[in-house]
Amino acid sequence: MKKYTEMTKEELQKELDVLNEKYKEYQGMDLALDMSRGKPCREQLDISMGMMDALNSHVDLSCEDGTDCRNYGLLDGIPEAKVLIGDMMENHPDNIIIYGNSSLNVMYDTVARAMTHGIMGHTPWCKLDKVKFLCPVPGYDRHFAITEYFGIEMIPVPMTSKGPDMDMIEELVSKDEAIKGIWCVPKYSNPQGYSYSDDTVRRFARLRPAAQDFRIFWDNAYGIHHLYDDKQDYLVEILAECKKAGNPDLVYKFASTSKITFPGSGIAALATSLNNMEDIKKQLKNQTIGHDKVNQLRHVRFFKDIHGMTEHMKKHADIIRPKFEAVLEILDRELGELSIGTWTKPNGGYFISFDSLEGCAKDIISMAKKAGVTMTEAAATWPYHKDPHDSNIRIAPTYPPIEDLKLATELFTLCVKIVSAEKLLKEA
Amino acid sequence: MKKYTEMTKEELQKELDVLNEKYKEYQGMDLALDMSRGKPCREQLDISMGMMDALNSHVDLSCEDGTDCRNYGLLDGIPEAKVLIGDMMENHPDNIIIYGNSSLNVMYDTVARAMTHGIMGHTPWCKLDKVKFLCPVPGYDRHFAITEYFGIEMIPVPMTSKGPDMDMIEELVSKDEAIKGIWCVPKYSNPQGYSYSDDTVRRFARLRPAAQDFRIFWDNAYGIHHLYDDKQDYLVEILAECKKAGNPDLVYKFASTSKITFPGSGIAALATSLNNMEDIKKQLKNQTIGHDKVNQLRHVRFFKDIHGMTEHMKKHADIIRPKFEAVLEILDRELGELSIGTWTKPNGGYFISFDSLEGCAKDIISMAKKAGVTMTEAAATWPYHKDPHDSNIRIAPTYPPIEDLKLATELFTLCVKIVSAEKLLKEA
Repeated sequence: MKKYTEMTKEELQKELDVLNEKYKEYQGMDLALDMSRGKPCREQLDISMGMMDALNSHVDLSCEDGTDCRNYGLLDGIPEAKVLIGDMMENHPDNIIIYGNSSLNVMYDTVARAMTHGIMGHTPWCKLDKVKFLCPVPGYDRHFAITEYFGIEMIPVPMTSKGPDMDMIEELVSKDEAIKGIWCVPKYSNPQGYSYSDDTVRRFARLRPAAQDFRIFWDNAYGIHHLYDDKQDYLVEILAECKKAGNPDLVYKFASTSKITFPGSGIAALATSLNNMEDIKKQLKNQTIGHDKVNQLRHVRFFKDIHGMTEHMKKHADIIRPKFEAVLEILDRELGELSIGTWTKPNGGYFISFDSLEGCAKDIISMAKKAGVTMTEAAATWPYHKDPHDSNIRIAPTYPPIEDLKLATELFTLCVKIVSAEKLLKEA
Repeated sequence: MKKYTEMTKEELQKELDVLNEKYKEYQGMDLALDMSRGKPCREQLDISMGMMDALNSHVDLSCEDGTDCRNYGLLDGIPEAKVLIGDMMENHPDNIIIYGNSSLNVMYDTVARAMTHGIMGHTPWCKLDKVKFLCPVPGYDRHFAITEYFGIEMIPVPMTSKGPDMDMIEELVSKDEAIKGIWCVPKYSNPQGYSYSDDTVRRFARLRPAAQDFRIFWDNAYGIHHLYDDKQDYLVEILAECKKAGNPDLVYKFASTSKITFPGSGIAALATSLNNMEDIKKQLKNQTIGHDKVNQLRHVRFFKDIHGMTEHMKKHADIIRPKFEAVLEILDRELGELSIGTWTKPNGGYFISFDSLEGCAKDIISMAKKAGVTMTEAAATWPYHKDPHDSNIRIAPTYPPIEDLKLATELFTLCVKIVSAEKLLKEA
């Protein structure tokens, strides 16, 4: 097939007529498909149902140190959960705080605490004229929502396949004391599925920010969420690297079991230096008497150890890998030769990132919506919902059944073709 | 027995010699007893073990509206949990937000949100020179810890058996715009076990605060925590009363199942007006995708309805009533005629409040501690840990086994006698 970019006006118009006919067919199908959010599908949830049997009325609900998990106590988590989550996060249990059900909530609270009380004795951010965060783009909309909510100015930093532009980051943080943080999804990034290279992580660990209270918000949401057993990305462990670089307090690292067991009923955690932990616990003890220890115990009894969790993740991979491959196969087949879009081919995580021709993303998503396919809102991957290129689209393949997903992806590619052809026709 | 206050110097000295001998005996017993916190005992936790069987791998984890509780969704809780907790709180389900495991966390977050974003469009409290809270005293130490942490000035308001001094409250809030809130435990109060009278609640609902963003923090922690089936306190429902008074947005009402099922693994909730809910949800959607719906479902399946919960509370009462009665019997027997202390006799809740002679509380607690009995820290029931009378002591009878509790209470009364006798001797 000829590239759209090389077609004449007449060829484009002819192609468009055919495409519009096809689109009408889809409209007649009364679809209601959802590719908008990174939600596990039912089959994925089913593989964790054994966790519902991990505890029952006949088992002892005491944890290793003898604490009755049913009662108050243990602000920062039960010892065996720290070991399991420590293994999952590749950190020492002593550097782990186990929280409630949501790592997003932990990130929000971390920003909120910095706003009202500052970090390790520094001025509370709410007392400063200006606070800025760096935001690798495209990125995770819920990160950006937190910083926007707190009135923190967001500065986009371009992503590459090796991680964000480190030259730009080094330059910016070394000069501007108002820059207090950066949002990172370092492994199987949201939405591109990129993993930061060894060099990127090393450079992060060696940052010399002007602000003493600058922190890297390292959201390792997909640390063990591989799609393949034989093709896995590896990430240099950031806490260890920071320690080696003489920057031990530079990072807050977040993770959860939301996409391992149940979203909303998993356990979340933070890993950081002992100094940061001390600072955090001073606040945490005022906020709660402790998180849900019974659910922590339920997770540990279900997985037993990190090997159990790793084996469990293979089951997730077996369910969602065909979905990723189906989307990629259709994108390749339908758009591979047309030069009207590029997309990522991740080895893990929950998303595929698609970039259309400049100025087309909104129209593509709106067109798909009108035919019954909901994608993530256009520009959601950019701070303030402003994608200056209007090109990035996040594809979330995990939730729909595979036949729906194929149909939705085919419709999506059709919308890409129509909107692109219209654009090229206008410009021709 | 003669009142200590009527004894001569010689009589006091003689009495003291006998008491000190007894104290030495206790010291030789190597006790390690804890009456410090309002923790349920093991037997109380055991009655909720059936909840661990309420869900298993064979049951459908969908809630009434079809939502799969295992997945993301439903920011403010599952419908059937809103009904159950609504019945528990005596509020319409539409006025309920179900949260995570800790109502303290909800209160903390409510203050934190007011600090950074203000209430319903008003100036964020962190931008004000001064923010003050009224604190009925004696009160709950963890309430005071939250306001202290946020630098909010706390103004003590004396409690009576009908609730806090309403004349003083009406006067203060009508004049001072810096007063933004008040902490209330309106039923079976912490630590006195007093319940606010109908008139007190009505006057609360009719407050005309100078500050438009003044809110009553109504922590109804012990709403259904009766000790007796036949002697129960009733509380006028504050939200309804506020609505009638034309003050619909005046109250945030908090509750949880921490002392119904498992502390740390219960569900917490907030009840408030629709205006306040809208204001809160604007923030909440940035903080989390949702709370633990599986645990909400677990609670509903276990209790079925409010009748199930009410029956369950009778089992709690049967376990802790004898403990309260044992403490009260010993206090009566040992101190009843001595005029060196007064105490409350609650119909519910978790505490008995004891008031020693002025200037004695710290010494009593320290003396009990030295003989192996840990009480709640002296002055914990006052803001800033400063009890101007040094007289209030919170007794928490629920946690220790009853024989331990009796021993601990006997030692406590002995310490009260010694410290009081010493004081009177000095003054004689």
